[in-house]
Amino acid sequence: MNISIIGASGYSGAELIRLLLQHPEANITAIYSNSQAGKAIQDVYPHLNHIFTEQLETIDCAKIQAEADVVFIATPSGVSSKLTPALLNGKIRIIDVSGDLRLETPELYKEWYGKEPITQNYLDQAVYGLSEWSAAAIADAKLLANPGCYPTATLLSLLPLLNEGLIDGKSIIVDAKSGVTGAGRGASLGTHFCEVNESIAAYKVGKHQHTPEIEQTLRKLTGRDALISFTPHLVPMNRGILATSYATLAEGVTTEQVAAAFSKAYEGKPFVRLRPGAYPKTKEVTGSNYCDIAWHIDGRVGRIVLLSVIDNVVKGAAGQAVQNMNIMFGLPETTGLAFTPVYP
Amino acid sequence: MNISIIGASGYSGAELIRLLLQHPEANITAIYSNSQAGKAIQDVYPHLNHIFTEQLETIDCAKIQAEADVVFIATPSGVSSKLTPALLNGKIRIIDVSGDLRLETPELYKEWYGKEPITQNYLDQAVYGLSEWSAAAIADAKLLANPGCYPTATLLSLLPLLNEGLIDGKSIIVDAKSGVTGAGRGASLGTHFCEVNESIAAYKVGKHQHTPEIEQTLRKLTGRDALISFTPHLVPMNRGILATSYATLAEGVTTEQVAAAFSKAYEGKPFVRLRPGAYPKTKEVTGSNYCDIAWHIDGRVGRIVLLSVIDNVVKGAAGQAVQNMNIMFGLPETTGLAFTPVYP
Amino acid sequence: MNISIIGASGYSGAELIRLLLQHPEANITAIYSNSQAGKAIQDVYPHLNHIFTEQLETIDCAKIQAEADVVFIATPSGVSSKLTPALLNGKIRIIDVSGDLRLETPELYKEWYGKEPITQNYLDQAVYGLSEWSAAAIADAKLLANPGCYPTATLLSLLPLLNEGLIDGKSIIVDAKSGVTGAGRGASLGTHFCEVNESIAAYKVGKHQHTPEIEQTLRKLTGRDALISFTPHLVPMNRGILATSYATLAEGVTTEQVAAAFSKAYEGKPFVRLRPGAYPKTKEVTGSNYCDIAWHIDGRVGRIVLLSVIDNVVKGAAGQAVQNMNIMFGLPETTGLAFTPVYP
Amino acid sequence: MNISIIGASGYSGAELIRLLLQHPEANITAIYSNSQAGKAIQDVYPHLNHIFTEQLETIDCAKIQAEADVVFIATPSGVSSKLTPALLNGKIRIIDVSGDLRLETPELYKEWYGKEPITQNYLDQAVYGLSEWSAAAIADAKLLANPGCYPTATLLSLLPLLNEGLIDGKSIIVDAKSGVTGAGRGASLGTHFCEVNESIAAYKVGKHQHTPEIEQTLRKLTGRDALISFTPHLVPMNRGILATSYATLAEGVTTEQVAAAFSKAYEGKPFVRLRPGAYPKTKEVTGSNYCDIAWHIDGRVGRIVLLSVIDNVVKGAAGQAVQNMNIMFGLPETTGLAFTPVYP
Repeated sequence: MNISIIGASGYSGAELIRLLLQHPEANITAIYSNSQAGKAIQDVYPHLNHIFTEQLETIDCAKIQAEADVVFIATPSGVSSKLTPALLNGKIRIIDVSGDLRLETPELYKEWYGKEPITQNYLDQAVYGLSEWSAAAIADAKLLANPGCYPTATLLSLLPLLNEGLIDGKSIIVDAKSGVTGAGRGASLGTHFCEVNESIAAYKVGKHQHTPEIEQTLRKLTGRDALISFTPHLVPMNRGILATSYATLAEGVTTEQVAAAFSKAYEGKPFVRLRPGAYPKTKEVTGSNYCDIAWHIDGRVGRIVLLSVIDNVVKGAAGQAVQNMNIMFGLPETTGLAFTPVYP
Repeated sequence: MNISIIGASGYSGAELIRLLLQHPEANITAIYSNSQAGKAIQDVYPHLNHIFTEQLETIDCAKIQAEADVVFIATPSGVSSKLTPALLNGKIRIIDVSGDLRLETPELYKEWYGKEPITQNYLDQAVYGLSEWSAAAIADAKLLANPGCYPTATLLSLLPLLNEGLIDGKSIIVDAKSGVTGAGRGASLGTHFCEVNESIAAYKVGKHQHTPEIEQTLRKLTGRDALISFTPHLVPMNRGILATSYATLAEGVTTEQVAAAFSKAYEGKPFVRLRPGAYPKTKEVTGSNYCDIAWHIDGRVGRIVLLSVIDNVVKGAAGQAVQNMNIMFGLPETTGLAFTPVYP
Repeated sequence: MNISIIGASGYSGAELIRLLLQHPEANITAIYSNSQAGKAIQDVYPHLNHIFTEQLETIDCAKIQAEADVVFIATPSGVSSKLTPALLNGKIRIIDVSGDLRLETPELYKEWYGKEPITQNYLDQAVYGLSEWSAAAIADAKLLANPGCYPTATLLSLLPLLNEGLIDGKSIIVDAKSGVTGAGRGASLGTHFCEVNESIAAYKVGKHQHTPEIEQTLRKLTGRDALISFTPHLVPMNRGILATSYATLAEGVTTEQVAAAFSKAYEGKPFVRLRPGAYPKTKEVTGSNYCDIAWHIDGRVGRIVLLSVIDNVVKGAAGQAVQNMNIMFGLPETTGLAFTPVYP
Repeated sequence: MNISIIGASGYSGAELIRLLLQHPEANITAIYSNSQAGKAIQDVYPHLNHIFTEQLETIDCAKIQAEADVVFIATPSGVSSKLTPALLNGKIRIIDVSGDLRLETPELYKEWYGKEPITQNYLDQAVYGLSEWSAAAIADAKLLANPGCYPTATLLSLLPLLNEGLIDGKSIIVDAKSGVTGAGRGASLGTHFCEVNESIAAYKVGKHQHTPEIEQTLRKLTGRDALISFTPHLVPMNRGILATSYATLAEGVTTEQVAAAFSKAYEGKPFVRLRPGAYPKTKEVTGSNYCDIAWHIDGRVGRIVLLSVIDNVVKGAAGQAVQNMNIMFGLPETTGLAFTPVYP
């Protein structure tokens, strides 16, 4: 497969390079970044010295269409909506790691992202690529909306229970914690080492753009209602997301029913590890495409607490994108992704 | 005031030394630690070189009673319950920073701490020292139960709203994040640098001993019912607690009512800083006795999200203990505590 | 004393505010920052909420001269050289925390800083304020060049030995490690959390502008020759400098002579703590004005290894500036600075 | 190849598992740990869930001999010296990652390690496995002493220059900085998160057991004299070593000669990346077997400064051990080790 990467100078782009270099079927033919065009990638990312030494180019949709079987778009939001119309025709398949194609309507996008949306017809074509839940649709997708980092961790833990009607979809509270790579590589006071280190804080309470992505996916994939409180936090670490989710259990739900719902959902799914009663650390999935899920039933208050950890740059971005590429091209899901986490 | 510190080799003990050394009315006459007895404190804590160079002694209740006007007990839980009966008579006043005297009944203590409780008559004498809410009782206390770190951050943010009936006490979910000092200075795999760094994880979900402390205080101080989900998390930082709390707003509650409830509760309280709409960082109170509280009303889901940050070693332990000592001895609350946070 | 602070929005400026607020003789009358003028300081530094809430003003030298007994300049290098001529007349005393006034000649400044120097006559008037070594000159200074962070840690450890001729001044190698506050608050890729965290690297090898500052002070204060290798490193922590210095011992030097040289130099100096044979952690001085010095004689290779730690924002900047202000105004050196380090 | 790992519960052991699982020719047949025998490895290291789930066994030398083509010993020092005599006969090949077999004489071991040495005949048989410098001897080794983490980083940067006579071997000063994994997984006050985080300190100045290992290897591989100052430091990060080395250049040495020496030494060596004039970050090799080397000539003082970074757990331990295994079994050096570093 010939592959182009747009936005290769960001953290998700660099991780795509890392993963695709070790993918037996992948051949990165070109990398693009308008802000860093003309530089060699190893000057932007010295860890790639001697390994991958291509030059970053200015984005050129015609050239990408001509060369690539698949293009990954790993830009900040607001860019993909402009590139997609020019890229989407002919044989090329698009995997969009930004958020521009995830929400179901332009109105919703505008409300939560505060940017100009792409038109409805593209949103209608885009397949939401939560690998473990939509493999059939993903296999046929020409335009794939790769899920957000927080939604991936959150949805994988909530879906099995909501799907089986074991929890009340309107009681859900998601308290999520992310490493700083989630904020991207752009320099700002908010990502300055001294401002983040030795501290934790919430941000965008009630306003984060991943909120409607989680809600619409819960509804769509389960056919049940869902309305959530979602609070993201910034943690002084590079990689990792922990989503701690709370939901009221339906009347009479047993421990066995909960376990059965998870087993049913993830039987044979190579990247979900069920760890009932455990306290997964984000570190236990670092560098890998795993999502580890634990649950704790608190009978005293009638709620279940779900703990779901991923590496936000891998399963939350580049890794799931490669997993989706594998599905789209008929390869085993684990091709190029069978990494052991790097611990500690 | 002549002061003894029991458990001076732990982090709370060391912080008591730091704070009391700068307290104009305090005179530390002796420091005790059975595990480190015989060592000079500056050999245990080299940051005290040239500043405070007393020798740690084996705990001797008779000697403490004879020498001290006030004794701080900063041991792990399970010790204070054994020392209190021997210390509590005569003029001495006891400030217990451990958890042994906080819960209302021996049964509750046994259930949540899994250790032998002190008898009911001592629990009946103990005044729960949440400084901003119980100053009158604290002033007369001979036996003071200093609040836990999580309860302090949590209660200060929830009490004003529950007290005014603005939130549903049975809807409360507290997702709390703590620095590693909260785990104490004892070496263990759980506090090993490499196991904590670059990671976040929950622990003791539904089982943390601060849960009943929060619930009973909410009920006692407001006269309303309360039942909470409480989930603590370990964050890779030394100091700081952020309690993110979620509660369903009562029908028709306005922004103004919420603001008024906080203003009413903390008018004239020097250590509570109200920051509506802000995202307080734990770092913004580091080294100080402040509790910063922000709130965000999420009308879409009918909930309020509270963000409350403290330095767990100061307002969550040694600082509030000194604040309570000030109240007990008729001094201004801020005596010896008027520190600016150390930022960044 | 009426005090103005120029550059109050940087880390050194914020630390000056913290320290001066607790100084019994200091009254901060105005704070200046051209980049943040018009903002309230607590909006730039929320940790100052309820404590200090002045507005940042555009720099106005005439107003400063009229109002202030002393002005601190805590800007990046290149600014102070422009302000000093306009500020220096009348009664006002200037304490320059930037590097513009430290080197002895304009040529040297231009070579190492790569910026336009101030003229020689100002450099001639400037007193280099290494408090423990030049108290008499500092007391009379109208224009004070506050030492750099690296030079402070390095010089305090090397001077006693070079002064007594116990080491060879041309054999000195200084390998220094700093926290990220040393890079200032400006956002850049180099201070991005993810780029600094979980890593260590050297920078400006052989080219750091503190190199000539160290050399000229060694020469000037001891009358002996000195030529050093100086290598700074960035460590993933907020505060702290450790200078590890290596020097060849003169023939026949004994352990006792080394100890005597240190004792002689720092007898009665309240902020230097001698800890022979120890391994001081930077954390053991955090938040305080202390410099802890340890030494290890390695007879096998004929060298001495010096370990010197400071809090770069305190003794390496704002703290030593306040110490110098105390000396300039005839106050005890420790006035407002008698803090216990914040540990851990 | 059938492989046994002794000491699989330590960090080097866990990393051997990670690397060997992805090695196409390796088959881990058994893992041993006396302290954790009977536990499943995924209970000791949850990141291995679903990936590798063997049980740790009590060390049994006869069983290992019968089963394994190669055994890795990744215990603390002092264990391998006892196991080696029982393991070393028959066809099995031993790769010792501990330090017991590295020094040339029992006397030297006893002096620097303070433990009982193995006898001289085993030390005589042991091949010191610095892969890039001794491939021929490694290929034939039955008993391989895998280099220490500090020596690997240090030697790879110093050897080319000393070998060509470009530096004075008696002028060498090595100031090394390591992440905390270097201290092992054992819990102690020295590895407690709060004691390490936000701090840097030196340790074992002039006394570290890697000092003679570096010196003897410099001498042996170059035939020149060498005497070094070696100072290790603990940095608040998990992985990574930076060795900053200083040496006096021989009279008249040119930049070109230095570059040529490095090129000559590492031409065709896949894991050494030469980066003249750069400031390599430890993070740029994390998770990989690379050693990045930069150099800076400081003509002003007549010295060269070398910067050498490795991942201490990979090239400094498990990775180099696998590289040596590849050499011993006639495989390409990069087999199973062609990882891109995990950045950031």
